[in-house]
Amino acid sequence: MLYNYRMDLILIQQILQNCKIHPDQLLIVGVSGGADSLCLMDLLHRSGLPILAAHFNHQLRSEADADEAFVKDYATKIGVSWVVGRGDVKGFALQNGFSLEEAARKKRYSFLFEQARVNGAQAVAVAHHAGDQVETILMHFVRGSGIAGLRGMQYRTVLPEWDAFIPLIRPLLGVERAEVEEYCLDHGLQPRQDETNTDVNIFRNRLRLELIPEIESYNPNFKTGVRRMGEVLAGEESLLKNLTEQAWRDCCRQLNPEIVRIFPESFSAFPRPLQRRLLRYGASKLLPDLRDLDFNAVERCLEFLAGAPHHGRMDVVDHLILEADYDAWFLMKQGAAIPLNEFPQVAEGGELILSVPGEIELENGWWITAKVCAKPGDYQSQENSIIWLDAELLHEKLILRQPRRGEQFQPLGMSGKSVKLADFFTNMHLPRRARAGWPIVFSGDKVIWVVGKRVGDYAKLQPRTQRVICLQLIHH
Amino acid sequence: MLYNYRMDLILIQQILQNCKIHPDQLLIVGVSGGADSLCLMDLLHRSGLPILAAHFNHQLRSEADADEAFVKDYATKIGVSWVVGRGDVKGFALQNGFSLEEAARKKRYSFLFEQARVNGAQAVAVAHHAGDQVETILMHFVRGSGIAGLRGMQYRTVLPEWDAFIPLIRPLLGVERAEVEEYCLDHGLQPRQDETNTDVNIFRNRLRLELIPEIESYNPNFKTGVRRMGEVLAGEESLLKNLTEQAWRDCCRQLNPEIVRIFPESFSAFPRPLQRRLLRYGASKLLPDLRDLDFNAVERCLEFLAGAPHHGRMDVVDHLILEADYDAWFLMKQGAAIPLNEFPQVAEGGELILSVPGEIELENGWWITAKVCAKPGDYQSQENSIIWLDAELLHEKLILRQPRRGEQFQPLGMSGKSVKLADFFTNMHLPRRARAGWPIVFSGDKVIWVVGKRVGDYAKLQPRTQRVICLQLIHH
Repeated sequence: MLYNYRMDLILIQQILQNCKIHPDQLLIVGVSGGADSLCLMDLLHRSGLPILAAHFNHQLRSEADADEAFVKDYATKIGVSWVVGRGDVKGFALQNGFSLEEAARKKRYSFLFEQARVNGAQAVAVAHHAGDQVETILMHFVRGSGIAGLRGMQYRTVLPEWDAFIPLIRPLLGVERAEVEEYCLDHGLQPRQDETNTDVNIFRNRLRLELIPEIESYNPNFKTGVRRMGEVLAGEESLLKNLTEQAWRDCCRQLNPEIVRIFPESFSAFPRPLQRRLLRYGASKLLPDLRDLDFNAVERCLEFLAGAPHHGRMDVVDHLILEADYDAWFLMKQGAAIPLNEFPQVAEGGELILSVPGEIELENGWWITAKVCAKPGDYQSQENSIIWLDAELLHEKLILRQPRRGEQFQPLGMSGKSVKLADFFTNMHLPRRARAGWPIVFSGDKVIWVVGKRVGDYAKLQPRTQRVICLQLIHH
Repeated sequence: MLYNYRMDLILIQQILQNCKIHPDQLLIVGVSGGADSLCLMDLLHRSGLPILAAHFNHQLRSEADADEAFVKDYATKIGVSWVVGRGDVKGFALQNGFSLEEAARKKRYSFLFEQARVNGAQAVAVAHHAGDQVETILMHFVRGSGIAGLRGMQYRTVLPEWDAFIPLIRPLLGVERAEVEEYCLDHGLQPRQDETNTDVNIFRNRLRLELIPEIESYNPNFKTGVRRMGEVLAGEESLLKNLTEQAWRDCCRQLNPEIVRIFPESFSAFPRPLQRRLLRYGASKLLPDLRDLDFNAVERCLEFLAGAPHHGRMDVVDHLILEADYDAWFLMKQGAAIPLNEFPQVAEGGELILSVPGEIELENGWWITAKVCAKPGDYQSQENSIIWLDAELLHEKLILRQPRRGEQFQPLGMSGKSVKLADFFTNMHLPRRARAGWPIVFSGDKVIWVVGKRVGDYAKLQPRTQRVICLQLIHH
C-alpha cells in the first residue's frame, strides 16, 4: 500500500505540475501494450483523467496484431475508449532512407498527434520513464550533442515536427522501470513482451544492455548522476533560450515562414556563442523538422558572416541558404523570394507613363508624383526623393520602367561623364536584391531620375529655365 | 616539412590567440619528460618564447630520478633553464585521504604555481592535448557533471585553487596525440615512457584504453563529436557565467572573504536555474578549493530558502553554512561573524553613562546624543530615532547597555502592559543577529528607549512636563 501511495503522489504531482495538465481535458495516451504504456494508461485512467488510448500497429512483428487486440481488449475492459492506426512502416522507411525504428517512430507520432487534433485533446502522453531518460542522454552524448540533447527528454514539450501547439507529455519521466514493473504486478496488469527490446542490433538497446552497465563499472551512481545532470541542464537550457530570444528581438526578424532577416550590426555585436544559438534558432523557425543545425554548418555560417560580404550566398544545409546583401543578411529557404516592400519597385517588362501633372502608384505604399511648380531657390538640392527639372528639355510624357542591361546614366554634377546604371547602383551600395526592379524615369531614351537616388544631368535646372517640373517619391 | 608547418601554425595561433600570451614574458612549463611535455617545451622554446622548464619528482616510481635527470639534461642541452621540485606524495596522500594521483597532481601544481610566483611568470603551461580533452569530458560525463565539466579543459583558465591571478594555459589542446608523437620523431626527441599510462587501475587510463574504444563502436566519430560539444559548451558556459554575474550584482554582495549576503527579494525573483548558479558562484567565492557545489547541496539550499524562513541555519557542505535572518540571507564559512555595521550596537558587559547634555559614540559611525530642549508640538511622535522625555521622571544619569535575559519593557502607548524585550524584538522583526548587542537606554532599572525602535512609557511627556530631554540616534 505504501508503494501505491508513492506512485499516486508522483502521478498527481507530475501530471499536474510538471506536465501542466488540465484535469478535465482529453489526453491521447500512446499504448503499445508493453509494461510502460500499460502502466501509464492504467494510472491516468485510475486518477480520473479523461483519456483516449491510441495504439499504432507497425505491422513489423508477427505479434503485432495480437498486441493490437490486447490493447483494445484491455482498454475496453477498464472502460477506456481506444483508437487504432496502421501504416506501411517498411515502405515508408525504404522510400525515405530511414531506419526501421526511425520510420516506426515517425509514423507512430504522426498518428498520435493526428488523433490529438481530431479529438481536440490537450496533449499526447507517452510512457518514457527515468531509465529511458538515461539512455536518451547517453545517446546524445555518444553522438556529440549540445545542451538541448544532453538535458534529455522533458515532462512537457512542444515539438513543431508533430504539432505547433499540442504538447507531448511524459508523466512517468521520474519513475524507475522497476517501479513500473512493480505497479503492473500489484495491479494485476499482464503487459505484452516486446522481444525487440532485447535486440542489441538496435542502438538504444545496446546502450541499455551493454554500454550503461559498462559505465556503471566506473561509477555505480552513473544513472542518478546523469539524471541530475539532465535536470540542471534543462534549467540552463531555458536560461539560454531566454537569452537567445532576447537577442533575437534585437537583431533578427522573421519576415515570413521562409525568411529570417538578420541585422548585421546588431548580430555582429553579440558574442560568438550567442551568434551560434541565433543561427540555430533561426533555422529551427524555418525548418521545424530539422532537429538541429550541425556544428560544421553553424561554424561555416559564422565564418561567412564574419567576412561581412557585400553580397554573397552560401548553402547552410539542404533547403536552407544564407544570403548577404549589403545592409541585410537573410537566412532563408532555398527558392524563397525576399520581400522588397522597403524599396520602390516597378514590375518587369512594362512601361508606365507619368503625365504632368499626374501620379503613379507602385506597390507597397510607394508613389511617384509629377507636377508643375515654381522654380526652387536651391535647385541643386541633394534631396533625392524630390527633384526639379527643366520642362523645356523634356518630352511631354515621362516613362517609368526597370533599368535594362548596359543602360547608361549621367548623374547630375558629373559633367559629361556617363556611368552604367549597374555601376551606379554598386557605388550607391544599393542592395542587390532591389536593383532589377528599381524604378527609373526616362524622357525618351535619357535617364532623368534614378528614383529616390539621383537626378540625371540631362534636364537639370538652368539659370534660363522658365518652366519647372517637380517629381517626388512618396512612401505612405 | 608540411607537417612542421602545420604544428608551427597551430602553435602561433593557439599560444597567441587562444592562450593570450605575451611573447616576451616568462612561461613556466611543466615537463615530466614524457612525449607531450617534451614536445611542448621544445615547441615553445623553438618559437622564441622565454620559458623555464619545471619538473616535479613525485618519487613514486623507480624511474623517477632518471626522469628528473633526463629533463635536466635535455633542457640544458637545448638551452632552457630548469628547476626541479620534490615532495612526499605518499605521505601527503595518506594524511589527507587523497588517492595517489590526486595527491601527485596537487603537489605538482602547487610546485608549478609556486615557481610561477617566485619567477614572476605570466602563466603556467601544461601539455594537455586533444586526446586528454576527450578523456576529461568523458570523465565528467561519467561522474555526472554540469556544463563547466562537460565543456572540458580550456586553453587559458585561472584556477583560484592554485593562484588567483596567474593562469594555467594548455597550448596543445587542439593537437592530436599522434601529431605530438610525429613531432617527437621528426625532431629527434626521445621522450621517457611512463608505464603507469597503461595501468588500467587508474581511472583515466581505463577510460582511454577501454571505454573510449567501446563508445567508438557506437559512433566512430565520437572523439570529434565530443570535442565540438566541448567547444560549443565552453561558449555557452561563458554566456551563463555573464548572466550569473549580472544577476549576482542584483542580489548578492560579498561582505568579506568569509561571507556573502543574499538579498531575499531579488534572489527569489530569479528563475531556479539561475538561483542554482548563484549559489554555486557564491560558494566558489568563499571556498575556491571547492570544485563545485554538488547537486544535492544546491537543491537543499533552494528548498531551505524557498521556505523563506524568518530565522534558520543549515549546513551546505563542510565548512559552509547558509543562514536566514529576516531581511538577509548569508552564505558563509562556518564560524564567520556577520558584520553588524548596519545596526547600532553596544559592547557586551559594559554600561555606558549618557550625561545630559552629552553624547556616546558607538562603533561604525553610530552616535547617541542627549540634550535639554524645548517641548515639541507633537510629543507622541512615531519618529523613533529621536525621542523626548520628561526630565523630572529620570535619573540624572542615563545608562546605555545591552539587554539582559528576561528584561521587560513597557512601550509607549501600551498603557500598563509590559513585554519581554526578546518578544518586542521579534514583533519588530529585528534581525536576530542584531539583538544581543542592541543598545537600550535605562533610567535606573527602567527601559526608557529601545534605541531607534521605540520609546518607553515610563518617562513619556505629560501635559504637565516642564523640562524636556531629547535623545537622538545618528548615523554618519
